[in-house]
Amino acid sequence: MKLTRFGLPGEEKPGIVTSNGTFDVSGFGEDFGERFFETNGIERLSKWWALNASNCPKVPADTRIGSPIQRPSKIICIGLNYADHAKETGAQIPAEPIVFFKSTSSLVGPNDDLIIPRNSTKTDWEVELAIVIGKKASYVEEKDAMDYVAGYCLHNDYSERAFQLERGGQWVKGKSADTFAPLGPWLVTKDEIADVDKLRLWLTLNGKTMQDGTTANLIFKLPFIVSYLSEFMTLLPGDVISTGTPAGVGLGMNPQVYIQPGDVIELGIDGLGTSKQTAKAHK
Amino acid sequence: MKLTRFGLPGEEKPGIVTSNGTFDVSGFGEDFGERFFETNGIERLSKWWALNASNCPKVPADTRIGSPIQRPSKIICIGLNYADHAKETGAQIPAEPIVFFKSTSSLVGPNDDLIIPRNSTKTDWEVELAIVIGKKASYVEEKDAMDYVAGYCLHNDYSERAFQLERGGQWVKGKSADTFAPLGPWLVTKDEIADVDKLRLWLTLNGKTMQDGTTANLIFKLPFIVSYLSEFMTLLPGDVISTGTPAGVGLGMNPQVYIQPGDVIELGIDGLGTSKQTAKAHK
Repeated sequence: MKLTRFGLPGEEKPGIVTSNGTFDVSGFGEDFGERFFETNGIERLSKWWALNASNCPKVPADTRIGSPIQRPSKIICIGLNYADHAKETGAQIPAEPIVFFKSTSSLVGPNDDLIIPRNSTKTDWEVELAIVIGKKASYVEEKDAMDYVAGYCLHNDYSERAFQLERGGQWVKGKSADTFAPLGPWLVTKDEIADVDKLRLWLTLNGKTMQDGTTANLIFKLPFIVSYLSEFMTLLPGDVISTGTPAGVGLGMNPQVYIQPGDVIELGIDGLGTSKQTAKAHK
Repeated sequence: MKLTRFGLPGEEKPGIVTSNGTFDVSGFGEDFGERFFETNGIERLSKWWALNASNCPKVPADTRIGSPIQRPSKIICIGLNYADHAKETGAQIPAEPIVFFKSTSSLVGPNDDLIIPRNSTKTDWEVELAIVIGKKASYVEEKDAMDYVAGYCLHNDYSERAFQLERGGQWVKGKSADTFAPLGPWLVTKDEIADVDKLRLWLTLNGKTMQDGTTANLIFKLPFIVSYLSEFMTLLPGDVISTGTPAGVGLGMNPQVYIQPGDVIELGIDGLGTSKQTAKAHK
């Protein structure tokens, strides 16, 4: 299944996407949040859908899309998880995963505007494959780790490089502005992706290709990441893990290229859909 | 007012603490979470309490206390914010605040057991004054910042130093284990603290004083911290900001001292109460 959420910010309703369009599944009575996932919501919704699909209203094509999940307890990111990206930023390939958090208040819909923060000079893009956790995970072994994954989403891990790298200490400062985590268009359930380790991911800036990679080049693979993180913290249902970005970010260019108001960023991952953000200056 | 939450983990009810004990304010109909704070809950509860106090049942003294607030969207911490602590860890005094996140899944009640994570060798303590945000804050000026604060809590920012400092990258790995954020016993509303910049804070390990400092020595003061953070992310009602720890952590000892199963950690801040955790090994 492809899950989505649609409607005005803060008032999103749950939907299911098929080849015939998006359908309103508000009748199921639950939003796609922690409780939905932890109570086996995907399987329950699937059964409900089999019986009720024909009664679900079609959503007009021009309706705003929100994040496909409600605000999670965490957005965890893996840094420097593609060798070519580590190289372009001048960093070494990490011996074990680099972990940082984005604020969950940065979460927005996939096609919402990117708001460049005040005083930003180095707002940058990062196309990433994000995992959504399906059930509570603590000290999970690598061989079992994918049992704890509900599905995957397209994510743009926007990053203010000056805030991240030049303002002292930890990266979170450059990762947490409002609109810095456009997620979706869909949560694609695990069963729909034949091989998550062979997905092309790409990003364009004003139509020009900036990133074009494949998840085959992930240094740390998904089962390892889930298992590894679960040693340090409990992963809750609905939590998001963004698995890192391939080469081609603005920080890695010579000269460096950063996002300006009016720029249009488009991105996609095989099977996970595409998204598009237009950059605007903060008022 | 002093707000508290009591009862079994995950089933906590809201309470108010007075010199006569703790009283169940479930009758108010709201828990102390984001929606409560963002809808002026403290003022509404105060008015309700004035009319209904005599009808609120007293809570037995041996009842478990939970976190005084529901799980927030963020637990933000300020690193190295006391000069003596920066010195003991061998770090320089930061030019601007060092910011990191703890997972919100680390939040527990003030007297719950500390569970030492598997493979931990360096679990450490940090008594801290925590701010609870009262209303949504984005680009707030320092002069207005305290208008966005609901109150204060005692917090023990438990830290696994090997996970934090020796496992690559960012600090979040050593800050996010379950039970690493005992908060409370109370959320003390702002009006109850005459001068938040003159509070003694202390911590003992098995009865021996390890930390004994004063918020007078904070490098970055509360209004500056709130204003500063609000440039990088939107602070949501109920968010927690832990403002840093004074000297006396295990990492700073010579030889270093870390928490062992059976150890008892007690801590307190003037006007914000005390808490006590007993360390246990993870099963």
